[in-house]
Amino acid sequence: MLKVVKIGGNIVDNPEKLDRFLVDFASLPEPKILVHGGGKVATTVAKALGIETQMVGGRRVTDAETLKVVTMVYAGLINKTIVSKLQQAGCNAVGLSGADGGFIRSQRRNPVPVDYGWVGDPLPDRFGLPMARTLIDAGYTVVAAPITLDAAGEGLLNTNADTVAQTIAVGMSGVYDTELVYCFEKRGVLMDVDDDNSVIPEITPQRFAELKAAGVVADGMLPKLENAFRAIDNGVRSVVICSAEALTEPGYGGTRLCR
Amino acid sequence: MLKVVKIGGNIVDNPEKLDRFLVDFASLPEPKILVHGGGKVATTVAKALGIETQMVGGRRVTDAETLKVVTMVYAGLINKTIVSKLQQAGCNAVGLSGADGGFIRSQRRNPVPVDYGWVGDPLPDRFGLPMARTLIDAGYTVVAAPITLDAAGEGLLNTNADTVAQTIAVGMSGVYDTELVYCFEKRGVLMDVDDDNSVIPEITPQRFAELKAAGVVADGMLPKLENAFRAIDNGVRSVVICSAEALTEPGYGGTRLCR
Repeated sequence: MLKVVKIGGNIVDNPEKLDRFLVDFASLPEPKILVHGGGKVATTVAKALGIETQMVGGRRVTDAETLKVVTMVYAGLINKTIVSKLQQAGCNAVGLSGADGGFIRSQRRNPVPVDYGWVGDPLPDRFGLPMARTLIDAGYTVVAAPITLDAAGEGLLNTNADTVAQTIAVGMSGVYDTELVYCFEKRGVLMDVDDDNSVIPEITPQRFAELKAAGVVADGMLPKLENAFRAIDNGVRSVVICSAEALTEPGYGGTRLCR
Repeated sequence: MLKVVKIGGNIVDNPEKLDRFLVDFASLPEPKILVHGGGKVATTVAKALGIETQMVGGRRVTDAETLKVVTMVYAGLINKTIVSKLQQAGCNAVGLSGADGGFIRSQRRNPVPVDYGWVGDPLPDRFGLPMARTLIDAGYTVVAAPITLDAAGEGLLNTNADTVAQTIAVGMSGVYDTELVYCFEKRGVLMDVDDDNSVIPEITPQRFAELKAAGVVADGMLPKLENAFRAIDNGVRSVVICSAEALTEPGYGGTRLCR
């Protein structure tokens, strides 16, 4: 079983949570890939450099200067800090961006109706999977930053980390029995967003349709679950949504998505 | 034959020179590793972030904030820009810092007599060579950033790129017939620093001693040549010092160091 684990900004931004999470992650005995988001560091660095962060519908617009900042912060500072901490925890980690070995190639997002700038959506071409496979089979743990390579030759593109994790899991599922784990700030998908004990243990596509219709699943959770079901439809064995603290717990105490 | 090529700030800082160099480098048919320096970008970013760059004897003092900047700029922005351009030129490049797979482990420099902060000197432990070998043997080109991993577990360390190139060449020479090529702003080691046509074609250790005594080799060239002879003493077949423009020329039109 290969585990593809994604952590978001709430962990990346908090040194204590990150340290605890990385020790847990390093202790997982299975072959594994970690995908990290960016968090607030990019916004802080951009601000300090006098670059205004523009958001449209909760998404960052990536102009040329912002692309430099996210490349520095995601593929440089965050990726190498995580790799260094995993090495210290005894996990032989290798940090990659989507450009390395053509790991994740993408297509620049259509500028109509909203021009997000240098933002790309991953292609399912599996071009870079031989490299990831070479490293995984040799015993290394891959740590992936959400910067991808424009397949049309235009350079680097900023990419949503959830989608990167889903693309990697789908790609690897052709070779390995693969589980995708999204770690986030809640214990799982909650029936009542204010009640941490209302975790829904399992969601099928039919239940997902019901939850959407009832408005239980909305906002940021909606694309996360849609991503997750796309992974299952394309070969990933199961997708789990759980708290970062639950990574080493049996069953993760979270929400498992299945057919 | 494996080629380990090092480029410095004068190429990294100049987009046109960098583009031309990378197309030349991509066209080399041999297995190859590129080691890049940092250039002025780190100083510019540090300044924009309000971090003062402190130099002692021409070397950057790396405090905790500066370490973050060089990690962002060297391992993030510069490394991934180079990888992306090499991918566009048809070269399947993988960018690594010294932390990745423990590629280059180092020892923090003794703070006496000068405390350079988070600066490390590479260890000759060859800990990370299996990963580089795995990638090279699978047909990838490695692009190395001069950020290394403190073997004592203290995290990342800023490291001189010439020394990183020498360490990689020595390490790989145990497995491959290895040539180390330093590309810099002159055509080679010059007999007369003001005459570009005075390239010394070959330097032996005895000739090196004479040139040092005569003051022909001084300043920045001295540690470069000392590094180079250390590489030859430890298994590297030859070291060439040449212009970046001469990379694809037979014999490089530069200076070859040999026993």
